[in-house]
Amino acid sequence: MTSPNDRTAHVVGLGLIGGSLALALRARGFVVTGEDADDASVSRALEREVISSTSMSRDVDLVVIATPSHAVIDTAASVLQRLDGHRAVVTDVAGVKVAITSAIRDPRFIAGHPMAGSEQRGLDGARADLFTGCTWVLTPTEYTDPDAYSALHGILRELDANVIALEASDHDRLVATASHVPHVVAGALMNEASKVAESDGALLQLAAGGFRDMTRVSAGDPSIWPDVLIQNADAVLGGLRHLRQRLERLEHLIESGDRAGLMTDLGEAARARRALPGRGVAIDELVHLRVPVPDQPGVLATVTTTASDLNVNIYDIEIAHSVEGQPGVIMLAVDRARADVLEAALEAEGFRTTREETR
Amino acid sequence: MTSPNDRTAHVVGLGLIGGSLALALRARGFVVTGEDADDASVSRALEREVISSTSMSRDVDLVVIATPSHAVIDTAASVLQRLDGHRAVVTDVAGVKVAITSAIRDPRFIAGHPMAGSEQRGLDGARADLFTGCTWVLTPTEYTDPDAYSALHGILRELDANVIALEASDHDRLVATASHVPHVVAGALMNEASKVAESDGALLQLAAGGFRDMTRVSAGDPSIWPDVLIQNADAVLGGLRHLRQRLERLEHLIESGDRAGLMTDLGEAARARRALPGRGVAIDELVHLRVPVPDQPGVLATVTTTASDLNVNIYDIEIAHSVEGQPGVIMLAVDRARADVLEAALEAEGFRTTREETR
Repeated sequence: MTSPNDRTAHVVGLGLIGGSLALALRARGFVVTGEDADDASVSRALEREVISSTSMSRDVDLVVIATPSHAVIDTAASVLQRLDGHRAVVTDVAGVKVAITSAIRDPRFIAGHPMAGSEQRGLDGARADLFTGCTWVLTPTEYTDPDAYSALHGILRELDANVIALEASDHDRLVATASHVPHVVAGALMNEASKVAESDGALLQLAAGGFRDMTRVSAGDPSIWPDVLIQNADAVLGGLRHLRQRLERLEHLIESGDRAGLMTDLGEAARARRALPGRGVAIDELVHLRVPVPDQPGVLATVTTTASDLNVNIYDIEIAHSVEGQPGVIMLAVDRARADVLEAALEAEGFRTTREETR
Repeated sequence: MTSPNDRTAHVVGLGLIGGSLALALRARGFVVTGEDADDASVSRALEREVISSTSMSRDVDLVVIATPSHAVIDTAASVLQRLDGHRAVVTDVAGVKVAITSAIRDPRFIAGHPMAGSEQRGLDGARADLFTGCTWVLTPTEYTDPDAYSALHGILRELDANVIALEASDHDRLVATASHVPHVVAGALMNEASKVAESDGALLQLAAGGFRDMTRVSAGDPSIWPDVLIQNADAVLGGLRHLRQRLERLEHLIESGDRAGLMTDLGEAARARRALPGRGVAIDELVHLRVPVPDQPGVLATVTTTASDLNVNIYDIEIAHSVEGQPGVIMLAVDRARADVLEAALEAEGFRTTREETR
């Protein structure tokens, strides 16, 4: 039964990500409704109780657009129109963000990208814990309503996601390096191996742990990728060119028998890979930073992306309003060990921070 | 205490692979001796009881050369000289095989390559179960003594390795695709990400499961790789060129917005990756093939590599001798479901096989 105090969420697009999100929100006590262009998916979602109904409540708290990425802009526009000024927070989960943040300048829409996936596909692969420990990027802009941002950040933290804020253009450039280029390379390695295996079946038996690791992502649902790669073409093409140049340089080292050069290059990679931070890093203790902010657009995006640039995780964010109802103070919960560096950077940006040691 | 019935093995080079092999052989009841150019490694190996002594018994059953790969040929030659015609089987574990099999034409030497590794390095990373389920390639030649081959195959099966026979040149070409090129690519992806992370620290937070999987191998000990890549330069350079061509082709598809072309390419990779056989495939039932063979060189290599070419695992191999002491019959234990295809191929090579249903 729905009580008037229940939080409500509506998910548009009930695939792997949308379905998992519906399950995760339900597990946190949300009443979750949903819709999908495919009637069979809707029936299965109702049957499996992933959603309780297909009709979005007029006072819904959160709407997630989890459609294929080419449909996000139109779907979000139509949802915002249906909400007609109601306070719901609207977000999406597409893998490329510049086009979406440029097209939708509604203060209640905050574009997002959970860095989670699975070899499973569709609703049948959906899992409530898909986002546990995952990095979830939000791309606030100068149009973003700080209260909407704070509400969304809080919900995503409840899902045990690690929320970071990036400018949309930085997001797109960085995911090209960390995700899109590696995905293309995994497919190329797999297809090259398949071609060799056509005449030499034994190849498949030589495909040990390293090869399996390197090609694992290519087993995921391919249908999302053409859109992603084409929407992020500039960054992906730049990344692929850089990678090819690196490979050419390595070929020259191999060709010329340059053991020392190879050792330097591979040694750097080994050190960097070993230094890659583990997921779910333990934090010592949280400290709360009070950041008084002027009433001007973009201030939330500046504060949150400054933290991301410094690799400072924001564990909680709250907006304290001035008597006139304008955002007056942003309160950030961050790791004590990293608070100094964030304070210094915010002061350099013109903010004066203070700490609240006990809350 | 050593009893006269104990099987004995000697391991030269007590690093990750040599140390693990010593532990694995000990766990199967071998008395294991060993040596290493580094005195500290020897002391630690004795202390940890990885080896029981540094002196190789004159009637040792198995000698494994697990030195850095550039030292294998000289070390094997010196070991074979020390053995002076004694019946011990000698093998190595280097990652490139053509140079070694061409240089050492002793019938008791069978070159090998266990496709196992670890992010750990050296003796301290050694584990008795490192080879469980791993593919272990042997490269028999026309010089190979069938009895030595059968003995080595049996020992490696005891270590729960999946033994396959390949011609040395096929091995080197196929590992370039399945291992050496992927390793180079993993390093390049990691170094490119490190460079981007220098100015954009948030990149490291976007390095999700896929990126971590694709760069994992680069964390391993880099010191073995310059030798491997330079010794296998032709095949590695060919593989890298093919990969770069595939990447260029994908860049064109992205640049021209060719969704269908990208979907075809990525869809092929997804299908191939999902079809990649799991490790430790369950077998239905073994059947024993009796393969009478003429007394001529190379017959063992032909029979075993024919099986590998067809992806037929040989679970056991025995040599039955003629009254004159020459190899007369090779007995192969293979999966019943795959026996037909192997028999047909062997008949095409001029062998007449028969099945022994009960043994």
